[in-house]
Amino acid sequence: MAESVSSIENTPHSEIPELVRNQLEALLEKNNLEGAKSLLVPVKAVDIAEAIENLPESMQAIAFRLLSKTEAIEVYEHLDSSVQQALIEEFKRQEVIEIVDQMSPDDRARLFDELPAKVVRRLLAEMSPKERQNTALLLGYQEDTAGRIMTPEYISLKDSLTVEQTLQRIRNLANASEIIYYLYVTDASRHLTGIVSLRDLVLASPEAPLSAIVTREVVSVYTDTDQEEVARLIQRYDLLAIPVVDREQRLVGVVTVDDVMDILEQETTEDIYTLGGVQSDGDNYFQTNLLAVARKRVVWLFVLLLTNTVTGSIIQSQEDILQQVVTLAAFIPLLTGTGGNVGAQSSTVVIRGLNTDEIRSLGVGYVIFREALAGALLGLILGSVATLWSFWLQGSLVVSIAVGLSLIAIAILASVAGSALPFLFRSLGLDPALMSAPFITTAVDVLGVLIYFNIARIVLDL
Amino acid sequence: MAESVSSIENTPHSEIPELVRNQLEALLEKNNLEGAKSLLVPVKAVDIAEAIENLPESMQAIAFRLLSKTEAIEVYEHLDSSVQQALIEEFKRQEVIEIVDQMSPDDRARLFDELPAKVVRRLLAEMSPKERQNTALLLGYQEDTAGRIMTPEYISLKDSLTVEQTLQRIRNLANASEIIYYLYVTDASRHLTGIVSLRDLVLASPEAPLSAIVTREVVSVYTDTDQEEVARLIQRYDLLAIPVVDREQRLVGVVTVDDVMDILEQETTEDIYTLGGVQSDGDNYFQTNLLAVARKRVVWLFVLLLTNTVTGSIIQSQEDILQQVVTLAAFIPLLTGTGGNVGAQSSTVVIRGLNTDEIRSLGVGYVIFREALAGALLGLILGSVATLWSFWLQGSLVVSIAVGLSLIAIAILASVAGSALPFLFRSLGLDPALMSAPFITTAVDVLGVLIYFNIARIVLDL
Repeated sequence: MAESVSSIENTPHSEIPELVRNQLEALLEKNNLEGAKSLLVPVKAVDIAEAIENLPESMQAIAFRLLSKTEAIEVYEHLDSSVQQALIEEFKRQEVIEIVDQMSPDDRARLFDELPAKVVRRLLAEMSPKERQNTALLLGYQEDTAGRIMTPEYISLKDSLTVEQTLQRIRNLANASEIIYYLYVTDASRHLTGIVSLRDLVLASPEAPLSAIVTREVVSVYTDTDQEEVARLIQRYDLLAIPVVDREQRLVGVVTVDDVMDILEQETTEDIYTLGGVQSDGDNYFQTNLLAVARKRVVWLFVLLLTNTVTGSIIQSQEDILQQVVTLAAFIPLLTGTGGNVGAQSSTVVIRGLNTDEIRSLGVGYVIFREALAGALLGLILGSVATLWSFWLQGSLVVSIAVGLSLIAIAILASVAGSALPFLFRSLGLDPALMSAPFITTAVDVLGVLIYFNIARIVLDL
Repeated sequence: MAESVSSIENTPHSEIPELVRNQLEALLEKNNLEGAKSLLVPVKAVDIAEAIENLPESMQAIAFRLLSKTEAIEVYEHLDSSVQQALIEEFKRQEVIEIVDQMSPDDRARLFDELPAKVVRRLLAEMSPKERQNTALLLGYQEDTAGRIMTPEYISLKDSLTVEQTLQRIRNLANASEIIYYLYVTDASRHLTGIVSLRDLVLASPEAPLSAIVTREVVSVYTDTDQEEVARLIQRYDLLAIPVVDREQRLVGVVTVDDVMDILEQETTEDIYTLGGVQSDGDNYFQTNLLAVARKRVVWLFVLLLTNTVTGSIIQSQEDILQQVVTLAAFIPLLTGTGGNVGAQSSTVVIRGLNTDEIRSLGVGYVIFREALAGALLGLILGSVATLWSFWLQGSLVVSIAVGLSLIAIAILASVAGSALPFLFRSLGLDPALMSAPFITTAVDVLGVLIYFNIARIVLDL
């Protein structure tokens, strides 16, 4: 046993879950439960959770039952919701209640979101009254809001206490509370009036009044504040937690920085999926079945199929000039491809800038104008090269000039479309990320061939 | 004055910097320095920094001088590096030294990275010996590593102390340390042997020995650990800070969660830029000049220009069949466009999965096989629709069948290429994100037209 434990301690963190999983599976296959139990002792809850997730389904419940009661709850909170659900079905009624009752309220609310309504009703009925109330409170708020992700467990104090009394108070209360790095000061009607950090409390002299170290300028959010906004505020003001108040400024909960980091990662994944033309609904793409995968991807593809048909029919409508100068066709992919890529670049930087608030203070007009200039500059560089390149390839001066001129026009147009459409979508209340690479690329194709053939006609007529 | 202060207090957080900026500019224009000073009193440092950044350059130094000394340092640390540099040039020698000497070592190292070497040498020479040593230590580590972003200011203790003695010790030390939520236990040779949270310290009985509440399983990183890995560990284990040790396990610094959130945001922006075909170097895209913007974008565009030329010459080489069945040309954009989009979707989910470690435990083969299946499914759906759609558009059964069959083949190929190429790039030690939408779209174009014309020839021959 000592051997397997020491091998875990010397393993890089990123390899621990896999190592634990493999050793755990081997021990469970041999039915060596004691060995498996001691294997897990030095391992952190999140790593145990990942190891259990990757075990064969038949072993998950057995592995989970090796854990001590307190550890079991922490591990359970870290499990993927699909594994959480599978375990609930495996467990006996009493086991389920014990876990669910001890979970932190925000994790429990997340689990209840995923469970069938019937199971949730049964669980709620069997929970302790205090926890039932906590959960009902959270479930009453909209998904993706501060109210849903907060914990209603926090420490609130009156500022008439001294530092010493406060510390005494904390020692009696702390086990009921998820975080005590910030303490909240409220008045008689539970209005949030200030905040004290545990740091300042420890550093203050014991007989000082609490009011002497209270910060009155508190950054707080409302229960209906979007979770992404909550995350941004915690990040902006370097907070460890942010208090959540109702419309009457009464303290109702706290959102902590660790929850917020997971939310930021999830929101980023959603942004990136949208940018890549994949619908995102918060589920793990790699854990969903193929039909769900197809559903997430097919809508966009149909939209783009239609748009591409338009490009095709424009090309077909230009049959006369194409038959006259056959080499024109050879440069269509170059022009539409480059236009699409220039547009995708512009939309990428603008969409990311909107999501991070980097361009909030710059103004829509300035950003689009700047992208147009960048497009013109890129068009000039690429157009010059493409003119020489196409002349060398085909030897037709007229076609080369048409290609070069078109490329300049297309680059400007693509930059403007790529930067303007995300703003337009945002002002319509839609996600700007929908106007990303797949869409811009296809849209610029349509306009690109139109510009190309019109310029070609003009150049050929000269 | 009271009026402007209260208007700030009732403003949503996201609008504060702009409101402050506008009021500040108005007051400075009227030369009302006292008014400006009291305007800034209730405003948080990060908001003041954003307001100053957006002031006309001539006012930035004046606004900055309104701040108290301690506040000035905090605001300075939050300023964009371009504004930091501009202010350094404006300030008198003594002012500069006072600010730089008081900055936290990690922020100072970041500033020194951007300043001309000559200025850095002069500043280092004039700094206090302790701060000079701190800075030299950090600057000795590679950029983007734990060593560079850590603070060398932390509290380390011997575990022979009692809880009461420890608290006493902290009260004497705390002002020198950026964070005291975790205290680090070291042995006589400065090896990190454990960690105590301030929370546990406050909750423990005063006469208990420190060793009774020390956690021995410490998650730590090395000075050369990549900053993204540091961020992932803090996120994974829900930490407020992570200790940094050298190769001999001696404690040398601490990275805090607030710094890590900014790093995650910056790394995400770099990932998204790479996905969109924009080179990222950590600079703010919207703050760089047009030439730098063009440089960030033009390399990719040239690569894609060449690839697109290949597609063009393939189309041209098929002139015989195109002249025979002219309608074939009309479906090229549809096929290459759809293929590109399917491939972009696959590469998006795989690249994101690699960045978030979601697919670490799944295995390369499984992920690619699953994408191939998804591609086949999407190909079947889209191919059936495209067959009917193209028959309705053109009335040619042979062409419609060629389009439908090609779409199935292209969708599978695009899914495999989109999922396999990021893995290939990672195994070559390159950034998988380079194999993203712009590249995949263009690469699939080449293969798409090849497949289409070959299938068309077979179908036409039947």
